[in-house]
Amino acid sequence: LAKNSLPDVVRVLSLLDVAETLEQLERLTTIDRALAYRTLPKGRAIEVFERLDARLQADLIEGLQDAEVADIFAALSPDDRVILMDELPAVLASRLILGLTDKERALTSTVLGYPQGAVGRYMSPEFVTTHPHLTAGQTMARVRAGIDDAESIYTIPVTDGGRHLVGMVSLRDVLRVGESELVADFAKEPLAVPAMQDVEEAARYCADAKALALPIVDAENRLVGILTVDDALRILEDAESEDAARAGGSEPLRRPYLSTPVRSIVQARVVWLLVLALGATLTVQVMGAFEATLAEQVVLSLFIPLLIGTGGNTGNQAATTITRALALGDVRPRDVVKVFAREVQVGALLGLLLGLLGFAVAAAIFTIPLGLVIGLTLLGVCTMAASVGGLMPLLGKTLKVDPAVFSNPFISTFVDATGLVIYFLVASSVLGI
Amino acid sequence: LAKNSLPDVVRVLSLLDVAETLEQLERLTTIDRALAYRTLPKGRAIEVFERLDARLQADLIEGLQDAEVADIFAALSPDDRVILMDELPAVLASRLILGLTDKERALTSTVLGYPQGAVGRYMSPEFVTTHPHLTAGQTMARVRAGIDDAESIYTIPVTDGGRHLVGMVSLRDVLRVGESELVADFAKEPLAVPAMQDVEEAARYCADAKALALPIVDAENRLVGILTVDDALRILEDAESEDAARAGGSEPLRRPYLSTPVRSIVQARVVWLLVLALGATLTVQVMGAFEATLAEQVVLSLFIPLLIGTGGNTGNQAATTITRALALGDVRPRDVVKVFAREVQVGALLGLLLGLLGFAVAAAIFTIPLGLVIGLTLLGVCTMAASVGGLMPLLGKTLKVDPAVFSNPFISTFVDATGLVIYFLVASSVLGI
Repeated sequence: LAKNSLPDVVRVLSLLDVAETLEQLERLTTIDRALAYRTLPKGRAIEVFERLDARLQADLIEGLQDAEVADIFAALSPDDRVILMDELPAVLASRLILGLTDKERALTSTVLGYPQGAVGRYMSPEFVTTHPHLTAGQTMARVRAGIDDAESIYTIPVTDGGRHLVGMVSLRDVLRVGESELVADFAKEPLAVPAMQDVEEAARYCADAKALALPIVDAENRLVGILTVDDALRILEDAESEDAARAGGSEPLRRPYLSTPVRSIVQARVVWLLVLALGATLTVQVMGAFEATLAEQVVLSLFIPLLIGTGGNTGNQAATTITRALALGDVRPRDVVKVFAREVQVGALLGLLLGLLGFAVAAAIFTIPLGLVIGLTLLGVCTMAASVGGLMPLLGKTLKVDPAVFSNPFISTFVDATGLVIYFLVASSVLGI
Repeated sequence: LAKNSLPDVVRVLSLLDVAETLEQLERLTTIDRALAYRTLPKGRAIEVFERLDARLQADLIEGLQDAEVADIFAALSPDDRVILMDELPAVLASRLILGLTDKERALTSTVLGYPQGAVGRYMSPEFVTTHPHLTAGQTMARVRAGIDDAESIYTIPVTDGGRHLVGMVSLRDVLRVGESELVADFAKEPLAVPAMQDVEEAARYCADAKALALPIVDAENRLVGILTVDDALRILEDAESEDAARAGGSEPLRRPYLSTPVRSIVQARVVWLLVLALGATLTVQVMGAFEATLAEQVVLSLFIPLLIGTGGNTGNQAATTITRALALGDVRPRDVVKVFAREVQVGALLGLLLGLLGFAVAAAIFTIPLGLVIGLTLLGVCTMAASVGGLMPLLGKTLKVDPAVFSNPFISTFVDATGLVIYFLVASSVLGI
């Protein structure tokens, strides 16, 4: 599509549904996207806008006229509005918020009141509630009254007179029980999340609980909003893109790949590469310290890429497993002893297998002493790499740094350098250099 | 918890809700989990069982008595039942299915009829439908009638007399419009997915469309089931665990980390390590071919870990970005030319930056010719690594191999070996060896 001229794009867009339009817009450059977007009919344009990434929304807004921007801004739900505001210049954001109705402004500022990273900033302040002393029939009447504004009507929080959350009912249960049944008699224990909680943890909790919406409460257990499963999904998807990028040693791109300028891709990667290269100068120093050994036995240098590669791979395996287990809540920082004990065993077993193989191959092709050096080094390197790799994400989490950010450079530098030290020490003692 | 004795565990479990019980059970060993599970009251036990991973369900079933197993099996929904059956020995699975009622057996075999990996195997065959000529009021009556069995009542597919899918209505719209309004007048275009479609793509589509449930149709567009958002979430979570594991060079663990035996962790990692180590023998050969160069200039060996490390990092960055973009649908295999063009530019820019820095540092500490060698090698290695790294996931996808499986060993071996060749060729020509 992007190879064709803009009139073609416009003609094609008019034939597509919302999801397909989004997919095509995400593949265009910023300017083409702004031009194509302006050709969409108004109702469709707002539907498409709502579902774009916040960063692409901000790109678009810069290319639109003030009146259009104000209309779109008013049409967004308060939580989406706040996420967009984070991407806009402060002056524009303030001007837009002044253009809202009093009610919309109040709703928006509820959400804005929470710090970035807290689930309060991603919740919707528009919801339907019921009370324990109301009947199922009365609850249905409240649902019908709130049906136009509420973000979700399928999960209904139950509150007492002081707005405290005391339970939850599903619309399904409201429809299932008799009209005159009291809410108190069929409400379930609420699955509440505090508004200040980390948004990724809250989204994971929503997904794990298979809840269509989670009530969000303040420090006094008063209901302040709901987090819907579709917002939770978007949050988890962003978090997973971030984890994937960082596990691969770069910062996440904030736009879809094809619509990210080359300059931004370079920016997302260069800092990491520099940090890793800087860390790798440690290996140059280690190699320098053993230069005499190398000069005497040049054959030792042949195995260096293989040995540090294997160490890096073993370390990465462990770090990736633990990073993912942390993200899923399967492991917590206080499991450090258990994780260490397991990874030492795993590393030693892997090292034994690879070491025996390495011994056999190197002894057959070169000499038995060299085989011994390679075999023992693999055993040592694998054990060290797996245990260090397993601990790093836990340490990162404890220090409140993204476990993936923390693990990657550390493994690449520490494991490589330590692996080389192990290699040269084993070589010196076995070969008697 | 796991450090305490079983009676403690049992006492604690009795105080927890379903989500907390699950979390604790997932941290126990297989035997402790079976013992603890049997202490749960019956209703709670089934609720907990339904939400366990299929692999843990299968572990548990082996420790329970036949009558208990039959009860639990009958209580599962047909799609969950099929996922569990995939984990059980075939004899046990067949015996269990014979114990079901005729209706449950028919529903289960609908789902069983689809191949593994197709969304048909993960859909629920229990749903409520409506017809275009019915009113909103009549639709509500159908919802109330099906409320006990249907997997979801919030998204209602609209079918014609031949069970063909012709639209979709949300329960919200059914409640919002007047009782006498015809479904035909407020139904939306259906977002259907064919039952044979890849389950991960279908789940991603469900998430992207922010749909609470997607209708699943057969080749003649007849409605055969629905995929609910909570099943889609579970599918995406498993897919992301798989991608994360493979990006880190291991097979995914099929149980939560702390409940996976050390032996299984070793199994998940050892094949990959062997493949990667085997590939790395290519580097030994390349090094061997240039042994004379190395013997003459031992100083060259000092930079080997740094140079191949940087190449590997650059390749990984590109591969991770493209793998993720493929998973999200931002990039497709036919974008190969665009991706290649971008990655060559990105790689060359990164190589230029790192190369200049490498030149400056190596020239300052060692000699200007050596600085030139390091700088030019970094430029060449980064450009090669980014473009190869970016292409590999696309090639994997085209060959229908998991892009992460394909990229990792290829980058580790090809990029390392090619990087060394670049290094020695640059060194030979600059230093005139």
